[in-house]
Order: sequence, then C-alpha cells, then structure tokens
Amino acid sequence: MTRLLAIDWGTSSLRGALLDERGAVLTERAFADGILHVAPGGFESTFDRCFGDVMQPGMLCLVSGMAGSRQGWQEAPYCPCPAHFADLAAHVAWVGDRAGRRIGLVPGLSMERGEAGGGAPDVMRGEETQIFGALRMLGWQDATVVLPGTHSKWAVAAGGRVTGFSTWMTGEVYALLRWQSILARTLPGEEPPLDEAAFRQGVGMAQSGPSVLHTAFSTRTLALFGRMPAQALPSYLSGLVIGEELRSQPLARGSRVVLVATPALAERYTLALAVLGVACSCLGSEATWAGLHALAGLVAGEAPCDGTPTPP
Amino acid sequence: MTRLLAIDWGTSSLRGALLDERGAVLTERAFADGILHVAPGGFESTFDRCFGDVMQPGMLCLVSGMAGSRQGWQEAPYCPCPAHFADLAAHVAWVGDRAGRRIGLVPGLSMERGEAGGGAPDVMRGEETQIFGALRMLGWQDATVVLPGTHSKWAVAAGGRVTGFSTWMTGEVYALLRWQSILARTLPGEEPPLDEAAFRQGVGMAQSGPSVLHTAFSTRTLALFGRMPAQALPSYLSGLVIGEELRSQPLARGSRVVLVATPALAERYTLALAVLGVACSCLGSEATWAGLHALAGLVAGEAPCDGTPTPP
Repeated sequence: MTRLLAIDWGTSSLRGALLDERGAVLTERAFADGILHVAPGGFESTFDRCFGDVMQPGMLCLVSGMAGSRQGWQEAPYCPCPAHFADLAAHVAWVGDRAGRRIGLVPGLSMERGEAGGGAPDVMRGEETQIFGALRMLGWQDATVVLPGTHSKWAVAAGGRVTGFSTWMTGEVYALLRWQSILARTLPGEEPPLDEAAFRQGVGMAQSGPSVLHTAFSTRTLALFGRMPAQALPSYLSGLVIGEELRSQPLARGSRVVLVATPALAERYTLALAVLGVACSCLGSEATWAGLHALAGLVAGEAPCDGTPTPP
Repeated sequence: MTRLLAIDWGTSSLRGALLDERGAVLTERAFADGILHVAPGGFESTFDRCFGDVMQPGMLCLVSGMAGSRQGWQEAPYCPCPAHFADLAAHVAWVGDRAGRRIGLVPGLSMERGEAGGGAPDVMRGEETQIFGALRMLGWQDATVVLPGTHSKWAVAAGGRVTGFSTWMTGEVYALLRWQSILARTLPGEEPPLDEAAFRQGVGMAQSGPSVLHTAFSTRTLALFGRMPAQALPSYLSGLVIGEELRSQPLARGSRVVLVATPALAERYTLALAVLGVACSCLGSEATWAGLHALAGLVAGEAPCDGTPTPP
C-alpha cells in the first residue's frame, strides 16, 4: 500500500495531509511552524515532531513551499519557465534524512523578464504545485491561473506548461494603505463586512485610473466630501487595488480563468473579474494536495530509498 | 510702509516670513506647531506666541496651508478648478481676530474627475499658493507644475489659470514599501546616499512595468538573485515609484515643467524627468512667499480693517 505524505511548508504555517493511492485525503494537520519559526538546522526535528508518527518506512513525502528555499530545510533551486510538471519532478531535491526516509522538496519556478533597460526575475515557491494541481483537477492544459494573496501570482499555462507568471504585492499594499497610511485616519478601526457596491466602484475606478498611487487618494477625498460612508471605504480601497491588479492582465472576454484562493479572496476576485466581464472557476487548498499527488506519480521511480541527499 | 506677514501653516510645521513691498524676505521663522499640534481653539494664541511681536497694526497677514482646513483655524472652502489667482484672492477667509488684525486664510483648490462609473474629487491646500507663486516668479501663464512629496501634486496651468491637477501618494507609498513591507527585510537599515544608476534603472523599469504593485516586487528578486547590491536597492525602489508617477503624466518632449521641491526631491525628480527626455525648472520654498506676496496685492483693497470675520 503506497501512500503519500503531502506537505505545504510555508513562511508562516505548516500543513500536511496523508493521501491514499487515488489522492484522497485520509487525515490533515496544521501547525504554526512556518519556516520563519524554525531555527537553522531544526527542520528535521520539526518534521519528526509534527509528522514522525505517520511517516512509515517506504512511504514517500513531498514538501512544497518555502521549506525548499535558501532559508528553508535545504535549497531546491528554481526551475526556469517555461516549465512542465515533469521538470518539477526531475528537480525535486531529496533531503539527506538520517532515518533514510524518502522526503523530497519541490522546486519553485523562476521567470526572466527582458524589458528594455534591464528586466528583473520573478519567482514563486509553493504556488507552482497549486497551479499544476488545479490543471490536473480540471483536466485542462491551457488556462490563466490566479492565486490571490499577500503576494498574488498570475500564471499562464499553455500545453500543460507554465509559460510565464508575475507577482503582485496587492494584499500587502492593501494592508499598508488600509492600516498604516494617511487613509487609515478616515477608515473604520475594525474591518467591516464586504460592501459589494463600494468594492465594484473601486474596481471600476481602477480601470480608468492611471495608477494606484493616484486612485488610492480618492479613498480620502470621497470621505472628505461625504460621498461614501466610512464603513464602505475599506471595500472601495480593496476594489481599487484588486482592480489595479486585474487591469493589467491580458484578460479577453471568454478567457479561461482559474482562481485558487481562500473563500474570502475567491469572493472578491470573482466579483472583480465579473466587473470586467470575465467568469472564473474556483478551487481551494485541495489544489496543493492534487499537485503533490500527481508529482508523487512522476517521481515514484526516482526517489532514493536510502536517504541519499541530492548533490548540491 | 506696507509690509506682509506671509505664513505657511501645514500639518506638521509652521513657517512665517516678513516681506517688504517688493516681496523680498526680511526675516523668516519656523516652528513645530503644525495644525496637528494645535488644540482646538488654540490657533490665535499659537499665532500670538509665534508672530505677535512682528504683526503690527495695519499690517496684512496671509496664511496658506492646512490652517484653512476644517481641522484648522477656520475653514476657507476649496475653490473649484479651473481657478485663477483672482479667484483665490476673492475667497480668502478673514479670521475673526480679537485684536482687529487683518489675517486671511487662503483657500485650497478642488477638482472634479468625471470618470465613467463615478469619479472622485481631488484637493490641494497650500500647493495652490506655491503654484501661482512659481508662475509669477517665472513670468509664465502656461506650464506643468510638479510639487513632489509625501502626496505629490501635478497641476496644469493654462492662460494663468490652474485647469486641473492630481494627487499621487508616491512619497508615502515609498516609505511604506521601504520600511514596512517584505522589501524592508532585504533593504539596508539606514538610508544610503542616492545611487543614480540604480535610481535610473528603477525609473526605466516603471516605464514598461504595468503597475507598481508588480514592479515593486522586483526590488526583492534583484536582491535574491544577487543582481543589485543592497545599498543600491532603496534608490532603485525610489526610481520605481517616482517613475510610476511620471509614466502616467502627459509629458511631451519639450513640455514646460516646473518643479517646486526641496533640494533632495528636486534632484530625484530632475533625474527621473531626464530619463524621459524632459527638462525642468526648479524652485524651492520661496515660491510660497512669492505666491502670498502676489495675493496680498490682489486682496489689499478687500481686507477688512476691523477684524470682521468672513461670514460662514
């Protein structure tokens, strides 16, 4: 009986699931031991404490997320785009586990932008597993996959490969503007429920506005002139930043868009996409397990059985 | 001998200058008593403490800035754009001073944007005096006037009137990204001197980048891939946000652009405009005194001599 221990080890959290042969979740656990809370050299002992009881001899464990970063358990260098699922599988970094267990770290993806005057690279780590998992779940080869969050990712898949992606600091900029900027003086001290009309107004404003550096200030002036109640302003500002993110995407009407998001963010992005006339499919965290399950099938023959680490 | 006490009373600072008949500065003073530090009802006593000794009977005093806001000494309602200097003069709000002194508050400007789907107003208070002052100093009727800062203003003057303007939260967003966001983890703990090459690279990146929500993340990836030294990253990020502000302006080569700025910001905006092939004239805080001096000539006949306040 081959089973997979699937782990999503991020910056601030650690989640694991035991999957059966078909990828169904048998049990699931979550811990606050994100990599920021793990001391250097402490990854194996954290793993043992959280998953030692379920990790049986001969079992495979695949870990996606920041555990494969330079600050993590061991570095799994980025795979450059365009990249297929098989490229990820071929570059899983095997951990030198003292107990000889088969624990692999999934690499992230990198992307080179060659703008005139010197471009800049872009990176993701963890989202690549969700993207491929979402494509598998839907049986699609081509789609735009959106992973909203603190740092949103927009990825384009074509022919089963991720051909390119970009990172958007939308969630973080929203939080900074909402709680730390001059706008915070006008906004309510607690986050009210989503006001859909104000949110849509923000999304619409962002479509014509030249930049969030300018449009964000309208949150203040709408309040100053008494044109929007304070309780609606956070939703308006949220619509402005999400609308700015959407404005710059190549989204033709009829585009095949997949959202991989928490329910709260899925609600906002679905609303914002609808303002632009774009429908989307929504998936949640199950995309991570689907991605790790599919990867397990690809690496099954490659995993060392004796705990030999990937050479640096 | 008619002299003017010219005052710039902002949110966090209070500056005053005694001007002679031709507008030359006789003496200048600065205090930390911005309107945020003045208790309600405490404006007259603050004025007396800071300027009581120089404010002679029969003298005129004009105050620009946030002292004319709803949270200030007394509200001087915004003049809507397009607005001429004479419109400002006609709407100076006269303070009901107990000693019968002639103290006038200069109104700000407002601007209505009628984007489809509901626009938003924009406002300035204090900058209008600098804009008209700059135009007077240069003897121009038509120009683009830029006032960079925490909240930058871009104003267009045509035929001696301010026909429109917009506010940009550039300085504040820079500070939030630089000190409070994930980027702060990569950036040096103290602000290094300006790195001109990195700054220009940021300005260039912003011209092709779709939005600062995306381009800002490149500050992190350039560091991650070792492509830019940490000491250069703040200048790069500064170039990104200032470049984003500039990208959206209608700046044809050969535009007549005036900067009213501190020396440090004048240096950065001059460099950024040069990347776009646009030259500019630079003025400093003297534009405020020039504006208040010119206004004094327009209101001289209208100022009450008996301390009668403007009716609400």
